[in-house]
Amino acid sequence: MSPELSGGQPATAGHAPDKLAGYALCLGDDALVMAQRLGEWIAASPQLEEDVALANIALDQLGQARSLLGYAGSLMQPVRTEDDLAYFRDERDFRNVQLVERSWGDRDFGIAMARMLVWSTYQLELYSRLTSSADETLAAVAAKAVKEVDYHRDHATMWVLRLGDGTEESHVRMQAGLDAEWPYVEELFDASYVDQQLLASGVAVDPSALRDAWNGRIEPVLAEATLTRPDLPPARTGGRRGIHTEQMGYLLAEMQHLARSHPGARW
Amino acid sequence: MSPELSGGQPATAGHAPDKLAGYALCLGDDALVMAQRLGEWIAASPQLEEDVALANIALDQLGQARSLLGYAGSLMQPVRTEDDLAYFRDERDFRNVQLVERSWGDRDFGIAMARMLVWSTYQLELYSRLTSSADETLAAVAAKAVKEVDYHRDHATMWVLRLGDGTEESHVRMQAGLDAEWPYVEELFDASYVDQQLLASGVAVDPSALRDAWNGRIEPVLAEATLTRPDLPPARTGGRRGIHTEQMGYLLAEMQHLARSHPGARW
Repeated sequence: MSPELSGGQPATAGHAPDKLAGYALCLGDDALVMAQRLGEWIAASPQLEEDVALANIALDQLGQARSLLGYAGSLMQPVRTEDDLAYFRDERDFRNVQLVERSWGDRDFGIAMARMLVWSTYQLELYSRLTSSADETLAAVAAKAVKEVDYHRDHATMWVLRLGDGTEESHVRMQAGLDAEWPYVEELFDASYVDQQLLASGVAVDPSALRDAWNGRIEPVLAEATLTRPDLPPARTGGRRGIHTEQMGYLLAEMQHLARSHPGARW
Repeated sequence: MSPELSGGQPATAGHAPDKLAGYALCLGDDALVMAQRLGEWIAASPQLEEDVALANIALDQLGQARSLLGYAGSLMQPVRTEDDLAYFRDERDFRNVQLVERSWGDRDFGIAMARMLVWSTYQLELYSRLTSSADETLAAVAAKAVKEVDYHRDHATMWVLRLGDGTEESHVRMQAGLDAEWPYVEELFDASYVDQQLLASGVAVDPSALRDAWNGRIEPVLAEATLTRPDLPPARTGGRRGIHTEQMGYLLAEMQHLARSHPGARW
């Protein structure tokens, strides 16, 4: 997204661009890292049809990441491109939640569907509200993304029901996947990274205000899937402050290797 | 693709279904394995825009694979699904050429673009002719695929020109990529796997007849990219007979792991 897209919009002009850039960066990093992890499933899921679905979901997340990072970079001084932000930041400068960065274990499909359910339900609530953002660019990105993540949630719900309320083994594995993801859910609702002024002016969405709606969507799915809502303490996280798991380093190494092996190359 | 799609078509009825199934299997395995390798590039290319392009190209190849393997399986006795064929065959039963199965080295973008250029140019010539196949299903698959691979070729051509006729370093790397792929090109034109009766009746395309058209497309691209056509002997291959490189085993392990870890599971 070019800088002109945000140029001259009154809603943006009233805020410190670095706060807004920081907010867009958090949301963009979430989507970028989720896309990277989802990409690992191409041709590795249990069905070719599902491979196609997962690859398309990864592409949606990648598209959201490009819009958000491009916008964030356009607000920075000096201006940075989406590629600068994706490939030339160090781990401590990434602002995504830890939920999306962790590996899939031994390529565990239960973990993948549990994560996609909790993540897409969160994104659905977030983007729904962000369509009313006082910032026109964020509102436009959210308006497109909300339709995408609604489909992601439908897709994850279908699998969680099928596996949770399936065979004895699929139930056990689906519950184990949910248990693995649950400690990382709390971080989604942590509002400490969002600037107060962005909230007050209706530019940003308060993530802590999404929790009830999120619960209201998740609980009926778990009940119908005969799954137990995990009673597990939150993990110690810190993704919004640049504190990441060991697995984030490997993810970035893979993602950034090529761009960094040709620093400054004009591909 | 369901068995009914081929039911009652006179062109198919005149042939031994196992020969036709075997032909569709070769073409489908090529696309499946190419898709799997291309999927490794999601969020790993030098640009986010390119990540999206490569993921879409992988999805096109996966779509071709599903159509071709679904058709092949529908002709078998007993009938097999696309998933049976993708996930529950052993390495020796895969019929893809070795060009598409090899790893990208140290995730080498020059290798990726060289392979995509030679592969998509081959597929373009193959599918162009297959649109006139006496078998209506193959003709329909080819009619859709030919538009896709024409775009893949455009995309690869753009990169080969940009890197070949770019900086000194990008030129060296692009030439190295071309040299790495070249020994595996000869296998594309090996006609020994195609049943004579399928050729005589216009169901299958003779791959050896594609060579001149392929050369006619490749040579101007190499010339404009200031690249040298490699003068290298063909590798000893044998993919059409089930003889694969060491790297094929790793690819299948990754692709088949999940489906095989739940044998018979109805996901």
